[in-house]
Amino acid sequence: MTAPIPDLPILAEDDSMLSRRFGREVANYFSGSPLNRVSWLRTDHAFLSAAFAHPKASFLLLDNLSPLAKDLTTLAYVGKNDVLPLTGPEPFKRSEEDVIKQFNSNITQPLILFLGIDEKKNGFEYRGYKGNPYFAVDVTPKGSVEEKAKGVVEAAKAKGGQSFIPGTRLMTLNAPEAAIYAQARALLDWNARNPFCGGCGQRTMSINAGTKRVCPSTDLADAPEGGEPKKRADCPTRHGISNLCFPRTDPTVIMAIVSADGTKLLLGRGKRYPPLWYSTLAGFLEPGESIEEAVRRESWEESGVTVGRVVIHSSQPWPYPANLMIGAIGQATPDGETINLGNDPELEDAKWYPFGEVREALDLKVSFGDEAPKGAKEGGLRLPPQTAIANRLINAVLAGYLGAAPKI
Amino acid sequence: MTAPIPDLPILAEDDSMLSRRFGREVANYFSGSPLNRVSWLRTDHAFLSAAFAHPKASFLLLDNLSPLAKDLTTLAYVGKNDVLPLTGPEPFKRSEEDVIKQFNSNITQPLILFLGIDEKKNGFEYRGYKGNPYFAVDVTPKGSVEEKAKGVVEAAKAKGGQSFIPGTRLMTLNAPEAAIYAQARALLDWNARNPFCGGCGQRTMSINAGTKRVCPSTDLADAPEGGEPKKRADCPTRHGISNLCFPRTDPTVIMAIVSADGTKLLLGRGKRYPPLWYSTLAGFLEPGESIEEAVRRESWEESGVTVGRVVIHSSQPWPYPANLMIGAIGQATPDGETINLGNDPELEDAKWYPFGEVREALDLKVSFGDEAPKGAKEGGLRLPPQTAIANRLINAVLAGYLGAAPKI
Ligand SMILES: [Zn+2]
Ligand SMILES: [Zn+2]
Repeated sequence: MTAPIPDLPILAEDDSMLSRRFGREVANYFSGSPLNRVSWLRTDHAFLSAAFAHPKASFLLLDNLSPLAKDLTTLAYVGKNDVLPLTGPEPFKRSEEDVIKQFNSNITQPLILFLGIDEKKNGFEYRGYKGNPYFAVDVTPKGSVEEKAKGVVEAAKAKGGQSFIPGTRLMTLNAPEAAIYAQARALLDWNARNPFCGGCGQRTMSINAGTKRVCPSTDLADAPEGGEPKKRADCPTRHGISNLCFPRTDPTVIMAIVSADGTKLLLGRGKRYPPLWYSTLAGFLEPGESIEEAVRRESWEESGVTVGRVVIHSSQPWPYPANLMIGAIGQATPDGETINLGNDPELEDAKWYPFGEVREALDLKVSFGDEAPKGAKEGGLRLPPQTAIANRLINAVLAGYLGAAPKI
Repeated sequence: MTAPIPDLPILAEDDSMLSRRFGREVANYFSGSPLNRVSWLRTDHAFLSAAFAHPKASFLLLDNLSPLAKDLTTLAYVGKNDVLPLTGPEPFKRSEEDVIKQFNSNITQPLILFLGIDEKKNGFEYRGYKGNPYFAVDVTPKGSVEEKAKGVVEAAKAKGGQSFIPGTRLMTLNAPEAAIYAQARALLDWNARNPFCGGCGQRTMSINAGTKRVCPSTDLADAPEGGEPKKRADCPTRHGISNLCFPRTDPTVIMAIVSADGTKLLLGRGKRYPPLWYSTLAGFLEPGESIEEAVRRESWEESGVTVGRVVIHSSQPWPYPANLMIGAIGQATPDGETINLGNDPELEDAKWYPFGEVREALDLKVSFGDEAPKGAKEGGLRLPPQTAIANRLINAVLAGYLGAAPKI
């Protein structure tokens, strides 16, 4: 058996490098970053120092996860001089080993996240790697740097043509910058949510330019001026590699389930959806579970439908706060199509929709919760917009992703 | 363009329910559990009590993550009476709300994980859900229950025909029980690694039958006999839903990269691999990154190869300690095939292997690190065994997964 993969429309057609470089793959919203993360250079403080100091370096500011932006579609960046009052002139001067030795739990560490280099822009070069550096800085006023952070926030606001825009479910940014924001938001949020060590309960500190946290073995807090730092209690994360030191990303499955005869789509609505709105089912993947198993479990738990074959379609980073949406397309078994909301009572409703009705709803192209355009069918189905992977999965189904004939 | 998905061999051909129920999908090792998790019932203490008390309930014991087993291929289960000295007779008697109110940081809570029900076995029934219950119990001697746990461990050892087998990289279990072990191991390990709250540093407690942890607002430790529990400091995880309360699963990409002309496979070897052994490249997915982007980034960082189109193939739970392996197949761009180990110097070597040489290595069917069978080519390539998703990806490539013609 073969499952034809059609030539799907690519979401970010004009501005995403993915559409040009990678042909027929589906690039979902929040993916397609123009930055090369050069991830192994995050431990190289000479590299970070040079990148930070370079006049072409761009700094994205986030205040309580709200990004500085020109408007709802375009981010704004500031230069090194604008962040210096918070970060100091040479935040990457010392080696990481030295920085950890100087850990002081009384001092709030300003979070400077290295995002990557934009290889399409010229100016910066380090050992043959060329492209201008991008950083994100957490300017949320807090702890011992509250006043300094406030100063940076106020100065940014005072400049014309830019403001901090709401960082909750922000879905209006242009595609490449949405990917930059997703990276910045996910990592600053993870650092902010994890000030303590899950292994021992002591305070942790950020290293690797914002992409790792460690549980230091000493603390300078309350040490006499110039004196020895206090030894802290032992911690399991200091022995061998511990995943607690790395950011977490929660895998989530989202699935377009097709009827056994390939003519209908299973859609559900959460309890807080606006009237008429439905979407594909979704849920968290659990430990010791494959993606395919999670798709079947969640489909059955939420709707009572038994799913047979599952094909993984594409994925979408989802920075609210730290999910990876894994999009799949599955097919119900012929005797497993009866809807039953009585297992896990999470959905308000689930229904089988004929493809024709689904197509009509997609053609409306309305944003989530918005009024339908004039002439739309009264009381008709409403579906998520193009920025949602649910929309791309539904499109793929209608384009014949699973083939016309039943696959079971 | 269509990418033919061939009728791939299924790994666990005889004993996995997946091979019977789901036809042509690839079920990787550690997936394909025979248990229905009925996940929403984990908060229902009446259900958990009935399941725990039922004479058909099976208990898998793990001592420091080593499972009780009949031999290296088959798990052993004990009955309720065998765990009672550790768990007490009615561990799910009280509602979760009550249990949280009784939190006492001086008392070690024995971890009893509800795994699910086996619907193919008769006896237990609850509100129409039929199938015998499975639990996993952490019998690692520690804290205030050290002696009780030791007693359970010793009693299990004293019975003939079973012993605790090493739980490190255990890959010999039959396929359905490997999936049960993966679920049990991942969740017991997560609970053991996270005794403290990352949000506030205070001790947490396990709820939802081992699948969630909370940061209680009070503590009975050191309270006078019958007195009021101590109020604890406020914690951000108590306000709204926090992902810190749920088990983490780290998404990892693993990818078979094919040359632009579709005749060669990119393989690499880690620094500690036995001589001659190679595998597909792999790495952790980062926040704000799609699976497809992670595949391209890791390929380029580790080998210098630029990857174009990426297709997600299948997935594998990997409980060492808590990974989700996401298997993908990608194709190098025609001008991006030059190997360069000088970016992230993680691999000892990376090479392009013609399909013929790869096929020869697969045909050897040797376990990781083992000697090749008699007659094998001197100094020839060695590849991971069938239990590894790398093996399944390589098989898929050789079976023509990406099609014969260049896809870029
Ligand atoms: Zn620690
Ligand atoms: Zn807490």
